[in-house]
Amino acid sequence: MPLLDPPLLTLLTDFGTADYYVAAVKGVVLSLAPRARIVDLGHDIAPGDVLAASFLLAAAAPLYPPGTVHLAVVDPGVGSARRILLAERDRSLYLAPDNGLLTPLLAAAETRSVERPDLHREAPGQTFHGRDRFAPIAAALLGGAPPASLGPVVTDPVRIERPAPRHQGHEIHGHVVHVDRFGNLVTDIPASWLASGVYRVRIATHETGLAVGHYAELPPGEAGYLPGSLGTVELALCGASLALAWDVHRGAAVRIERRVATD
Amino acid sequence: MPLLDPPLLTLLTDFGTADYYVAAVKGVVLSLAPRARIVDLGHDIAPGDVLAASFLLAAAAPLYPPGTVHLAVVDPGVGSARRILLAERDRSLYLAPDNGLLTPLLAAAETRSVERPDLHREAPGQTFHGRDRFAPIAAALLGGAPPASLGPVVTDPVRIERPAPRHQGHEIHGHVVHVDRFGNLVTDIPASWLASGVYRVRIATHETGLAVGHYAELPPGEAGYLPGSLGTVELALCGASLALAWDVHRGAAVRIERRVATD
Amino acid sequence: MPLLDPPLLTLLTDFGTADYYVAAVKGVVLSLAPRARIVDLGHDIAPGDVLAASFLLAAAAPLYPPGTVHLAVVDPGVGSARRILLAERDRSLYLAPDNGLLTPLLAAAETRSVERPDLHREAPGQTFHGRDRFAPIAAALLGGAPPASLGPVVTDPVRIERPAPRHQGHEIHGHVVHVDRFGNLVTDIPASWLASGVYRVRIATHETGLAVGHYAELPPGEAGYLPGSLGTVELALCGASLALAWDVHRGAAVRIERRVATD
Repeated sequence: MPLLDPPLLTLLTDFGTADYYVAAVKGVVLSLAPRARIVDLGHDIAPGDVLAASFLLAAAAPLYPPGTVHLAVVDPGVGSARRILLAERDRSLYLAPDNGLLTPLLAAAETRSVERPDLHREAPGQTFHGRDRFAPIAAALLGGAPPASLGPVVTDPVRIERPAPRHQGHEIHGHVVHVDRFGNLVTDIPASWLASGVYRVRIATHETGLAVGHYAELPPGEAGYLPGSLGTVELALCGASLALAWDVHRGAAVRIERRVATD
Repeated sequence: MPLLDPPLLTLLTDFGTADYYVAAVKGVVLSLAPRARIVDLGHDIAPGDVLAASFLLAAAAPLYPPGTVHLAVVDPGVGSARRILLAERDRSLYLAPDNGLLTPLLAAAETRSVERPDLHREAPGQTFHGRDRFAPIAAALLGGAPPASLGPVVTDPVRIERPAPRHQGHEIHGHVVHVDRFGNLVTDIPASWLASGVYRVRIATHETGLAVGHYAELPPGEAGYLPGSLGTVELALCGASLALAWDVHRGAAVRIERRVATD
Repeated sequence: MPLLDPPLLTLLTDFGTADYYVAAVKGVVLSLAPRARIVDLGHDIAPGDVLAASFLLAAAAPLYPPGTVHLAVVDPGVGSARRILLAERDRSLYLAPDNGLLTPLLAAAETRSVERPDLHREAPGQTFHGRDRFAPIAAALLGGAPPASLGPVVTDPVRIERPAPRHQGHEIHGHVVHVDRFGNLVTDIPASWLASGVYRVRIATHETGLAVGHYAELPPGEAGYLPGSLGTVELALCGASLALAWDVHRGAAVRIERRVATD
C-alpha cells in the first residue's frame, strides 16, 4: 500500500484540547516520522464515547486519499489487555483500540492485532498508550512498515451492535445516531426509504410532517425533515437547535409513518 | 496568481470541533489536492454567525502570504440558490458563500460567482456544501485553476451594512464590534481619533476615563481604554472580563466624549 | 542547531479558538517563513494561566524532534517591559514571555533575552505581541537565525517557585498540579516513592487506599491511585471525574501515609 508523500496521519481522540495529551501524541509521531503531516479529525469526543468516535471516523476518514493512516484513540480500557487493531480498507490504514471504535469500517477491511511490544515507548505508567504505543505504531506505518509486519490477521474484533432501521407494517423505525453542533438530529434511516409520499416523523411526543430539501426552506420555529449529508433522514429547525427544542438526545427512537394523501 | 508550494489553504467555519464536518472538508480537499497544507483559521464561530466570521477573516487572512487560498464556510443558506463567491485580493483568493461574509474584503477585490457544477461532488442531500462544493472548488484553486475559469465577475455581492463610527458634535459614536475571549471590548472607533486629549468612554451606564497603553497598566478592577490590535479603541479590565463586569455584548453603542482639560 | 526540513513550529497560547488571534500569529509566521509547518500544542489554556501553560509545555514539547521551535504565548504582561526569552535545550528552541512559563525547562537550557526591535512588526497598539513580536522572532528562528544573533544570555529569568513534594515523618506531602479533562488528579509526587507497600492517599477529607495499574481496574464509583503518564502519582475514578466527585482543584494538598501491613 503506497503511502502519500509526505505521509499523512489523521488523529481522532477524546483528549480535548486543554491537556497535554494531543500535543504529546503528535510529538512522538513527529520524532519518529519527522516528515509526517498530521490532520486533526477531532479531539472533542466526549470522554470515553467510543460510539461518537466511531460515527465521526466512519463519516470522515473514508474521504481522505488512499495511503492515509488514521489513528483513533478513544480508549477507556487503556492499560488493560485489550488489543490494538490495525484495519486496512480501501488502501488506507486504521489504528485503534479493540473496543468497537472501528465497527462501521470493519466489513470491507483486513484487520490485524498489533503485537509489536518492541515498538512501545518506555514510559511511566499504563495510562497513556496514545503516546507510548499508538503513536510509535502509527509512526512505523508512516515510515512504511507493512501491516503484515505488525501482527496477525484477526477475525474477532469487538463490534458495537446497534439495532438496524427497519420497516414494520406501514411504519419505519430507526434511531437518532448523532446530534450535531447545530442541534440537527441525524437518524440512521436511509433517506431513499422516503423516496416519494407524505410522511409523519415522530420522536417521543414530537412530530413533523414537513419535508424540505435544505434548512433555509424551514419556516422560523417549525421543525422539518430532510435528506442529510450522510444519506439518512435528518430533522432540523432553521437557525436553532431542534435537539434543545424537542429535548432529544442520541439514541432516541424515531418512527416514520406514511400518511394517506388525503390526510 | 502564483500559489505557494506546497499550496496553502486556510479554513474558517462554524462547524465546531466535535462533529465530522471539518474533518470531512479537509478529507475532500486532500483527496483532490494531496499536497495541500491546511491551516485552521477557526471553527468556533457561533452557528450561523456570518458577522463574526467576517470579522475574523478580515482580521487574520490578509496576514497570510500571497498565493494563499482562504475558504470560509458559515452558510446558513446552504442548499438554497445563494451563490458561491470567489474574491481575488492582494494576490490571495477568498472563497465563501454570498451572504456578506466577505464584506470587509470586497473593496479591493475582483469578485466572481463560481459556476462550475462539474466540480461538485456527488453526494446525498443539500446540507453540506462545505464538503460537496466548497472543498472541491478550493481543491481546484489549490491545483492551479485560474479564478477566471470558475465563473464570471459579479458586482453585486451581498454586503453586510454596518453603521460607520462618526463624530457628532463633541462626541464620537461607534459600536462594540467584537468581544474577545478575555472579555475585552473591541470597538470600530479608530484609535487615531483619540490622538491627544482626555476622554470619557461610555457604554450604556458604564464609563471610564482611564487611558492606558497596555492591559497590565490597569489597576485591579478598574476599566480603561487603549489602542487595540486592529487600530481601534478597545476597552478592558486587567486579568478579568470587562464584558462580564459591564454586561456588554457585540453591537453595544459606544460614546466617547472629549473632556475639558480642567475637568 | 540544525532545524528540521521543512522547519517545525509548535504553538501554545491562551488565545482560545474563537478569536482571530491564533490565526493571526500563524499568518505572520507563514508570511515570513512560508515553508514552516505549525503544530498546535493547545490554545485552551485559561486566560493568563501561565502555570497551566508551563505544565503543558514541559510535558509535551520535549517529545518533539530536535530542531523544533516552540512558541508559547501566555502573556498577561503584554505591552509592558517584560522581556522575551529564548531558551535552547536539547537542541530545540523555546520562545516565551519572561513570566515563569519556561520554569520547568530552564535547568538544562541556555537562555537569552531577545533584543531585536528590528524584527518587530509595525502594528497598532501594544496588546498583541504574539502577532507583532513573537511571530516574527519565531519566523526568524525558523529561517535559520542563530539564537546568539537574537540577544544576550541571561541568568535571571522569572521562575515560578513551587513547593517540592517531600517526605515528612512517615508521610509524603505533595500537591495536585493538574486536573485533566477526565477529572483525573495529577500530583507532583513521584510514583517511584511508592514503590512497595500499602498506602493511604488523602486530599482534604477524602481518601483512598486502592492502588491500581490502570483506570479500568477501578470498580465503578471507587477512587484509586496509580502511576500516571508523567511518572507521578495520579488519582482517578473509572469513567467519571474524580475532580468533580471530590471537588478538588489544582493546588490541593495531597498527603500519602504508609500503612502497616496488618491494617
